Amino acid sequence: MRDVIIIGIGQTPVGEHWEKSLRHLAHDAIMAAMADARIEHADALYVGNMLSGELTGQEHLGALIADFVGLRGIEALKVEAACGSGAAAVRVGVMAVASGLHDVVIACGVEKMTDTSAAVTTSGLATAADQEYEVSQGISFVGLNALLMRRYMYEYGVRKEEFAGFTVNAHRNAAHNPYAMFQSPITAETYVKAGMIADPINLMDSSPVCDGAACVVLAPAELLGGRAKARVLASAVAIDCLAVHDRRDPLVLDAAVASTQKAYAQARVTPADISVFELHDAFSIMSALSLEAAGFAPRGQGARMATDGEIGIRGRVPISTMGGLKARGHPVGATGVYQIVEVVQQLMGQAGQNQVPGANIGMAQNIGGSGATVITHILAGV
Amino acid sequence: MRDVIIIGIGQTPVGEHWEKSLRHLAHDAIMAAMADARIEHADALYVGNMLSGELTGQEHLGALIADFVGLRGIEALKVEAACGSGAAAVRVGVMAVASGLHDVVIACGVEKMTDTSAAVTTSGLATAADQEYEVSQGISFVGLNALLMRRYMYEYGVRKEEFAGFTVNAHRNAAHNPYAMFQSPITAETYVKAGMIADPINLMDSSPVCDGAACVVLAPAELLGGRAKARVLASAVAIDCLAVHDRRDPLVLDAAVASTQKAYAQARVTPADISVFELHDAFSIMSALSLEAAGFAPRGQGARMATDGEIGIRGRVPISTMGGLKARGHPVGATGVYQIVEVVQQLMGQAGQNQVPGANIGMAQNIGGSGATVITHILAGV
Repeated sequence: MRDVIIIGIGQTPVGEHWEKSLRHLAHDAIMAAMADARIEHADALYVGNMLSGELTGQEHLGALIADFVGLRGIEALKVEAACGSGAAAVRVGVMAVASGLHDVVIACGVEKMTDTSAAVTTSGLATAADQEYEVSQGISFVGLNALLMRRYMYEYGVRKEEFAGFTVNAHRNAAHNPYAMFQSPITAETYVKAGMIADPINLMDSSPVCDGAACVVLAPAELLGGRAKARVLASAVAIDCLAVHDRRDPLVLDAAVASTQKAYAQARVTPADISVFELHDAFSIMSALSLEAAGFAPRGQGARMATDGEIGIRGRVPISTMGGLKARGHPVGATGVYQIVEVVQQLMGQAGQNQVPGANIGMAQNIGGSGATVITHILAGV
Repeated sequence: MRDVIIIGIGQTPVGEHWEKSLRHLAHDAIMAAMADARIEHADALYVGNMLSGELTGQEHLGALIADFVGLRGIEALKVEAACGSGAAAVRVGVMAVASGLHDVVIACGVEKMTDTSAAVTTSGLATAADQEYEVSQGISFVGLNALLMRRYMYEYGVRKEEFAGFTVNAHRNAAHNPYAMFQSPITAETYVKAGMIADPINLMDSSPVCDGAACVVLAPAELLGGRAKARVLASAVAIDCLAVHDRRDPLVLDAAVASTQKAYAQARVTPADISVFELHDAFSIMSALSLEAAGFAPRGQGARMATDGEIGIRGRVPISTMGGLKARGHPVGATGVYQIVEVVQQLMGQAGQNQVPGANIGMAQNIGGSGATVITHILAGV
């Protein structure tokens, strides 16, 4: 099994790209990553995407995008794991390189969510949940997360305003990320006063509907070690049941525990070694549950970490360092690749005003559904 | 890189499964394959599926199905390449085992197409084509194939009735396959008189809308060689442009040429070594084009092979030996796995009345779209 490195990264700004279709967004991210990697060809392309079938009537993105970027003839496939699709594409890319079957592999996450009606987007996002046992009862994806947040507040005696720090941190960091959707800081007061979406989740607990694409180029260390921007120490996937009511305990992300433990073992690190943790803050409650599952907080204490000293750039466990899903934006099938791109920026010391001092090991964790699929990558600087 | 073997196969009958949902179909095929492989656990599951998002509002099949078959905690992802999704899942499984990242891997293709309206199914299938440059002009997926067939007939002076042999062969073989949808032979007269769908494609040129699931269990030869039912000699993917009008030549499947050549090179075989060729006969025209692309017929001569002496069980190049897409059925995302299961049956000498004498090397080729993604596997008996 070969060691895998990242030799190039690329991303488009996240936002409402009315003037660009899905294939153009993917094109822009891939061209940027290929230029960054100084390559003009690749052996394979794996595309992470969740919603293009539902929202734009387009499946078959592997061939579509590979051809559009001028790579006719190569291997190209789409990989899907709901909102975890981006990291899933990277995961398959890592296998392709580690196996020796391919040398230079592109993994691209792309999503185009805005060019449709809100009703279609809402039902599209609900395809991440269990259609027959959850969605058919009328619940939306936000609704499922609202149930989790309400239960968390009840079970552990946490007040709504205690979650504010997650959003304040994300927006503050996004202000210095030119690729972020919301480059404006907010206050805790703004958080508390935001309009309600699905009680207790308000607008400031929720990541936005948006468009974007991000890309990494993977290669074997033995061939292209000199171009390494980061080393892939771990790549791990674990699943739980899809329906939240089937979980052993709704407030414990068993798949995140399993995925993180596998990743720590592969990388031979402990939580204390992680300099940067790009977690899946699709909703504030997911930040709290993710911090607990990854071993940074005891059960019920994740929300208490929403302070600068804990999660800020100079905190104990910096999270959402480039804005996270909340403020950089959450183009669902692209998010997992954005997270990895941002970890590489941190490890290379290229995170600008958001640079975590001395960052040398970073973890990116992408979640599909309300915790059913969890994909964890641990990267090291070179 | 480790050698990969198949240690178990499973399939459901193909048909209209009104009483079973998608997860139940996948469950049945996976349970059968796990029993066949004599395993009670697996490290990973890759699901091939094209349409569940569009037709049943359900994405995220990796976690859904892994949990439903009792494999909570493992790695599970969905892989999509339109009608090539089944073989795409096997392809990712091969990488997972070859790399050493996983030992026992399940690849399952599943599709549930019947429980919706014909209009929804038609627009779902069109997601395999280019939405912005083909489908938006009003063409359906059958329509695209009709254009190819018409052009083929014009260009090479082939008469419609000359294609009859492909369908007659498929139905005759399906009659002896208990998993096939249409277990009844037809005559050339039935073919010619069948109702027109999209001129010149009639009902007997077209594979049916149906439900089904098929599954293989993959493992490394070095660990479980004693349980091998077949060896994977080659696994290759190549893409062409999605839109047919962008092709170098609409009547040459460049991706099939590239995919087959890669596979022949990996397996170190030539077309003459192939005992069985399970090709992608979604429409009769695709049989002709596939035979040409794989090197069994010169350009324009593929349709002339539609005779018993060429493609029959005892012919020079036996195809659709268990009924093919036309008569076994074409549950799109499952088809690629059915093809591989059937090749394994042939290599094990377990194809019953359809047994190809002395079959020792078999090729399965699964196509996404009208030739945009082509995935080829070559297997050898043990």
